[in-house]
Amino acid sequence: MSRWSRLIRFEAVEGGIHYGQPTAASLLPNGSLDTSKVITATEVVGGPFEGTVGTRSFTVKKLLAPLETAPVIACIGLNYRLHAKEGGNKIPDNPVLFHKYPNSLAGPGPIELADFVNDKQMDYEAELTVVIGKAGKNIPKEKALDHILAYTCGNDLSARKWQRACGGQFNFGKGMDNFAPIGPQLVSSSVITDPQNLRLRCVLNGKTMQDETTGDMIFSVAEIVSFLSRGTTLVPGTVIMTGTPSGVGYPRNPPVCLEHGDVCSIEVDGIGSLQNTILYGPTVYETKL
Amino acid sequence: MSRWSRLIRFEAVEGGIHYGQPTAASLLPNGSLDTSKVITATEVVGGPFEGTVGTRSFTVKKLLAPLETAPVIACIGLNYRLHAKEGGNKIPDNPVLFHKYPNSLAGPGPIELADFVNDKQMDYEAELTVVIGKAGKNIPKEKALDHILAYTCGNDLSARKWQRACGGQFNFGKGMDNFAPIGPQLVSSSVITDPQNLRLRCVLNGKTMQDETTGDMIFSVAEIVSFLSRGTTLVPGTVIMTGTPSGVGYPRNPPVCLEHGDVCSIEVDGIGSLQNTILYGPTVYETKL
Repeated sequence: MSRWSRLIRFEAVEGGIHYGQPTAASLLPNGSLDTSKVITATEVVGGPFEGTVGTRSFTVKKLLAPLETAPVIACIGLNYRLHAKEGGNKIPDNPVLFHKYPNSLAGPGPIELADFVNDKQMDYEAELTVVIGKAGKNIPKEKALDHILAYTCGNDLSARKWQRACGGQFNFGKGMDNFAPIGPQLVSSSVITDPQNLRLRCVLNGKTMQDETTGDMIFSVAEIVSFLSRGTTLVPGTVIMTGTPSGVGYPRNPPVCLEHGDVCSIEVDGIGSLQNTILYGPTVYETKL
Repeated sequence: MSRWSRLIRFEAVEGGIHYGQPTAASLLPNGSLDTSKVITATEVVGGPFEGTVGTRSFTVKKLLAPLETAPVIACIGLNYRLHAKEGGNKIPDNPVLFHKYPNSLAGPGPIELADFVNDKQMDYEAELTVVIGKAGKNIPKEKALDHILAYTCGNDLSARKWQRACGGQFNFGKGMDNFAPIGPQLVSSSVITDPQNLRLRCVLNGKTMQDETTGDMIFSVAEIVSFLSRGTTLVPGTVIMTGTPSGVGYPRNPPVCLEHGDVCSIEVDGIGSLQNTILYGPTVYETKL
């Protein structure tokens, strides 16, 4: 049986939750998942890390995050020149690492964000997202891409006021539940051999807000993986969001923010479109510090 | 069978790795684990979250981290007034959250740190460390302590140059392998009812470097737990390091740093002493960015 080259995770019309490889009919000519129509898939047995393509066919009822869990969600800030500039930041000397809580992981579709950040501060960030497949530590840059399982689309959702309000550390304002939607398709690193040549867009309610290529990154994917592994073991399943290009909403004049009901899509050519409807939850914070 | 009140994890003289409750003979009068002599323990069946005290007795051969894994290691920076001041930082308006990778978790004893940070920058940070036992989101401050399983000692090891070199984000310089030693004893929150009245010390090669009480915290343990749960589900096993008092090494004149072979102990009254020997690993970083 052969390894998968493209992987989705989904609820099936036939019942159950499965991993599968989309059929050719479910892909656009460039390999992106075609979410405009009903998706069919062939089962992948053994999950994302060891899985091989089986024989059963499924019709997708609902696309889910392509990973069930992530041990770590590592994110790189300020990794595109124009984006660093639009926020009034210097070009960083080293990758600007922050983390999101593992349970910020979400998939495509409606996602509920905390009600208390529904105050004109929520922002989108289109990001090429990497999943580590092979553990490593002190990985040389030249070997870094060998440690990557696959690529997908990601949205580094950011509560801008909170991103600044915690002594300058980004983690709290970027790490809440459902702040890391990814997917829907993982594309194997055997298919995407050059991650620095992908067009990356954010489309908000039908309007293109971000549109650059990953060639504009300050630190390449290989440099990021190598850097993060300095002194640190990267484990399989680690999700790395590699930074966002210019065009985010908060520094615009007037500012743009994610409102209840907004539809935000992150698109990477050859991978597909991660479409989320933003909902703010009813949960009210009960304690004031 | 009764719940444990004090918990260690260890390799036993009798073989195997076990959880156990230290016997009365292994505790000092204040309840601290007495690591100056051979420790005996009664098995705890079912692990830290659901475990109860069984009947088998063990003699400890080697103390280990009291948790096998941690889904999240959340840390609070600048949470003691004098420490914020010694580093030239403002008193923060909100808890300063950063994360360490889960595999930074370590226990007592010799720990290997990356060779490339052995350049006069490694620092200790004595911290009261909290383990979440009950999941929660938007936890009111008044109920926050109910979500805590136990308290232990922690050392928020910090590579000071790298802490500053990544655009000001702390995660990289504080998150490497073995940068979060904790233990050796978990003390149940049923025993420690007031976490704001504990004396906390760091002793380096026999010399006291930090010595304050947790009453000096800017944000209390309850406030931290409540704050971190805003919009974010805290899951059982989450480790929270609650900040360090004044007396760290890097801002001293002359600066003090952790050298190869140094013995660094974090002591919390009623919990015990987390003693680590600092070793720098032979691994050489192979790539320069």
